[in-house]
Amino acid sequence: YGKNTIKFLRLHKEGKKHCVKEVEVCTHLRLTSAQEYLDGNNSLVIPTDTIKNIVLVLAKKNGIPTLEQFAIDICKHFMTTFCQVAYVKTYVQEVPWQRLHENGTPHIHSFICVPDGIRFCEAEQCRNGPLVVFAGIKDLKLMKTTQSGFEGFYKNEHTTLPERHDRILCGELFCKWSYGECKDFDFDCIWNKARECILEAFSGPPDCGEYSPSYQKTVNCIQMLVLSKVSQVQVIEVVLNNTFYNVVDMKNLGLTNDKEVLVPVETPYGSCACTLARKKFLEA
Amino acid sequence: YGKNTIKFLRLHKEGKKHCVKEVEVCTHLRLTSAQEYLDGNNSLVIPTDTIKNIVLVLAKKNGIPTLEQFAIDICKHFMTTFCQVAYVKTYVQEVPWQRLHENGTPHIHSFICVPDGIRFCEAEQCRNGPLVVFAGIKDLKLMKTTQSGFEGFYKNEHTTLPERHDRILCGELFCKWSYGECKDFDFDCIWNKARECILEAFSGPPDCGEYSPSYQKTVNCIQMLVLSKVSQVQVIEVVLNNTFYNVVDMKNLGLTNDKEVLVPVETPYGSCACTLARKKFLEA
Amino acid sequence: YGKNTIKFLRLHKEGKKHCVKEVEVCTHLRLTSAQEYLDGNNSLVIPTDTIKNIVLVLAKKNGIPTLEQFAIDICKHFMTTFCQVAYVKTYVQEVPWQRLHENGTPHIHSFICVPDGIRFCEAEQCRNGPLVVFAGIKDLKLMKTTQSGFEGFYKNEHTTLPERHDRILCGELFCKWSYGECKDFDFDCIWNKARECILEAFSGPPDCGEYSPSYQKTVNCIQMLVLSKVSQVQVIEVVLNNTFYNVVDMKNLGLTNDKEVLVPVETPYGSCACTLARKKFLEA
Amino acid sequence: YGKNTIKFLRLHKEGKKHCVKEVEVCTHLRLTSAQEYLDGNNSLVIPTDTIKNIVLVLAKKNGIPTLEQFAIDICKHFMTTFCQVAYVKTYVQEVPWQRLHENGTPHIHSFICVPDGIRFCEAEQCRNGPLVVFAGIKDLKLMKTTQSGFEGFYKNEHTTLPERHDRILCGELFCKWSYGECKDFDFDCIWNKARECILEAFSGPPDCGEYSPSYQKTVNCIQMLVLSKVSQVQVIEVVLNNTFYNVVDMKNLGLTNDKEVLVPVETPYGSCACTLARKKFLEA
Repeated sequence: YGKNTIKFLRLHKEGKKHCVKEVEVCTHLRLTSAQEYLDGNNSLVIPTDTIKNIVLVLAKKNGIPTLEQFAIDICKHFMTTFCQVAYVKTYVQEVPWQRLHENGTPHIHSFICVPDGIRFCEAEQCRNGPLVVFAGIKDLKLMKTTQSGFEGFYKNEHTTLPERHDRILCGELFCKWSYGECKDFDFDCIWNKARECILEAFSGPPDCGEYSPSYQKTVNCIQMLVLSKVSQVQVIEVVLNNTFYNVVDMKNLGLTNDKEVLVPVETPYGSCACTLARKKFLEA
Repeated sequence: YGKNTIKFLRLHKEGKKHCVKEVEVCTHLRLTSAQEYLDGNNSLVIPTDTIKNIVLVLAKKNGIPTLEQFAIDICKHFMTTFCQVAYVKTYVQEVPWQRLHENGTPHIHSFICVPDGIRFCEAEQCRNGPLVVFAGIKDLKLMKTTQSGFEGFYKNEHTTLPERHDRILCGELFCKWSYGECKDFDFDCIWNKARECILEAFSGPPDCGEYSPSYQKTVNCIQMLVLSKVSQVQVIEVVLNNTFYNVVDMKNLGLTNDKEVLVPVETPYGSCACTLARKKFLEA
Repeated sequence: YGKNTIKFLRLHKEGKKHCVKEVEVCTHLRLTSAQEYLDGNNSLVIPTDTIKNIVLVLAKKNGIPTLEQFAIDICKHFMTTFCQVAYVKTYVQEVPWQRLHENGTPHIHSFICVPDGIRFCEAEQCRNGPLVVFAGIKDLKLMKTTQSGFEGFYKNEHTTLPERHDRILCGELFCKWSYGECKDFDFDCIWNKARECILEAFSGPPDCGEYSPSYQKTVNCIQMLVLSKVSQVQVIEVVLNNTFYNVVDMKNLGLTNDKEVLVPVETPYGSCACTLARKKFLEA
Repeated sequence: YGKNTIKFLRLHKEGKKHCVKEVEVCTHLRLTSAQEYLDGNNSLVIPTDTIKNIVLVLAKKNGIPTLEQFAIDICKHFMTTFCQVAYVKTYVQEVPWQRLHENGTPHIHSFICVPDGIRFCEAEQCRNGPLVVFAGIKDLKLMKTTQSGFEGFYKNEHTTLPERHDRILCGELFCKWSYGECKDFDFDCIWNKARECILEAFSGPPDCGEYSPSYQKTVNCIQMLVLSKVSQVQVIEVVLNNTFYNVVDMKNLGLTNDKEVLVPVETPYGSCACTLARKKFLEA
């Protein structure tokens, strides 16, 4: 198979207001034949340059109403236009431009980049198969300064980690979920709801939080809340890259450090991942 | 000279609310003698490990009331404690953790990383010289989708760039300014005011913006507004790394592209920089 | 599942000569139960810290005779020691330290880092399944300045790419291959042979080279040569990330540019990938 | 001032052999007037696009005989062509393509990227001032596994570092040196000689090495050897970014670790730097 990536800006106006979407689009294609690999016969190969042109033309003609709709448009175009395409996957990710505000007033044409989690989506289709749509968020860095511990784990002669009931929980989240059949979905609204669930499940109630006994359990809480609150989500995968922080031992320096000064531990670093699906989906 | 970098987290509580500052501190030292270089005599060398300990101990004892105050504390410590130090510079930069909110309610202990411009500061001092404080913002990405052009530039036989009166202005800003004598400064308040000036000067009025005839002029506007609105700022340096966008030529594809689809130009990329000081400062 | 990464140095002596291996080891584990995710019950969880200790202890006890043997040792340790482990995968990659030479004489204890392709391997095992070993090279950047073209590809109304019979072929290679049952393999020798095949197939004969009609065909040539010359390789995957170079049009500058000055095209960039297996392997 | 960066490939043939230089060129300009900043008057501004064209045209016309000669050509062009230029600096760095060899035979047109230290140079000139040329190497990673210690350093109540007489010395070197008046220099030959001196001074004799009492002393040894062996070098600056390695304490795991297994310490990390000039140069 082959894939290629193109980055571009799509501008449009709503009344006097200027709007901007900057996206990176990666298109994967697998052809029905592998003759270009085996025989050096390029007659079915769609050049990278052509794929780029198609993506830009679709952006020009349709705009980018939502990332998901744009990915769907691209998939459909390749499937219907090229009979030599056996499989197509389109990944779209957004540069997080946000409109600037001055004293609460939105600016007509100025934007600031705010990368507090990157929105992405994927649409994929095999010839004669259904078009499947995924959405997600990545590079979302979160921290809880308390209400996190790790106790009762498996121990043997190689164990040196002490049990902790009040540590820092910090990590970079990757979440990706799939939708069922997409009829008239408001993809922006759904995505925002999913993001809110992620933050809520990570944090717990604002006034007291909720104790996390492990990174793994926090991953599961996020999945459960998204599945329960966002009915369109069928399967959800979460990967949490952990950043560990050690309380600095200051005894040699004549001081008691009561979880006031901590240093990040670069290595080992870990991650935990889980994929969870609705029962009805698994049964289907 | 030598320098070293340490990254750590400082936690404290305000009532029930947990607060967090994660900083990266880089300390430069120059000693009065170079005997460790010339003779391999280490007797005056302050090891990296000791510098780290000092930074962590100061963080533990004083907390980090503001980045600037913390940098000042470190500088002063080195100057007063070690007579072999001829020069010290401390750079402090902040990991942009922001408190999470749920439906408007601030969370007691959960944070999200929002890197929309990184705050930093520097304090430096030569033995027998004044302590000078700088503050700044870096990695601030801004875009104007209109009200920007570039015309009337110098032309010769190597010129191929057309004049443009409606282009994209996009770039990554670095701003660094110095303060005069710091007596009872509210560093957080001053920094926020400076940041607001930068955004305002870049954008112009929210309802119509203001035409920028060049990246250079925009750099100057930012400097002028900060100097006029923030009296504590004495000298201000601005560097703007430009990202150019080209309107995609779609004639060959049978389409007219009226600044709707643009691609970023990776190379050549450029930057412009300027340092501006108050007249009274220059005269002094 | 969970994974974690640890980086370390293993030193030993051969006579008076000092030897060094610096590796990054990433261990993935999947447990037989998911109770830590679902119930917050950590009793079967093997902490990241314990995994780190095990990897370091194995390095101390066994050394790192080859990357592959070390990965096999780690896999076997986890499978035999922890009955709650359902699956283990160990990835090992080497920091490319090479012994320094002075006028042809090897230095007893000094090394230089030469990252002309990074060697890695993987060992994986499911409980009750066979232990499978992979080896590979990544980040290998190669260029042919001629003997490369791209012609006869599929064309339609979105095609703007001209046919070319003398372009630059440049890219970053990733190759990964699997071994069959590993009995008394000399992994270092096999890996070096595979690397030589890759370079030879990419380049062709030194005096004239060999024409490449596409990136895809070059990928295939690499696979075919490795399979034919290295009998231990059963399946080989190659991914080639392309860097395109455009001949700069200098007509406006009054010059003819006969493929003398070219600029890299950052976007779109592409890659092609293919996995090829021996017939006997597929039939097995 | 403004600067801009362009990356490109320059190909030529020597007989049947194809030769390649890929370089990144960064040109800084300061104009005699700042009217584009102050008044938005662009009439003296040389656009980034024009600078790019000039660099490419010079590469086309003159080739890149050596990095240094190319940088000199660019500087001279700007100074002689544009009377509004008050200062020009050109930085050139090379992508380290090396010709592939098959069984000792050099390949006619195939290359591999071998980044074991990046060669760069700089030429700079003020109007009415001399043209000054610098050359250097960066990203050169070196390691000594023994013959390095750190003892007898300054101690006080914040010292926790133990003295060590057999540690790892590992770091990333940056060296930059200036030439005097360049008449008929063989820049390639001089650069290679300087690189050899750096490696030799870092390592010591191949059969036994030479003890380094500190990173600082190693920096000085490098400078002294280059100055003594390469007469064209007038001033030399060396920065050594240290990577520290800690011997893993395995007592809790029931093992003695005799400097066999070490882990890199990510933070704090340090660097030391020194600039050294010939006496005759300082006296001049």
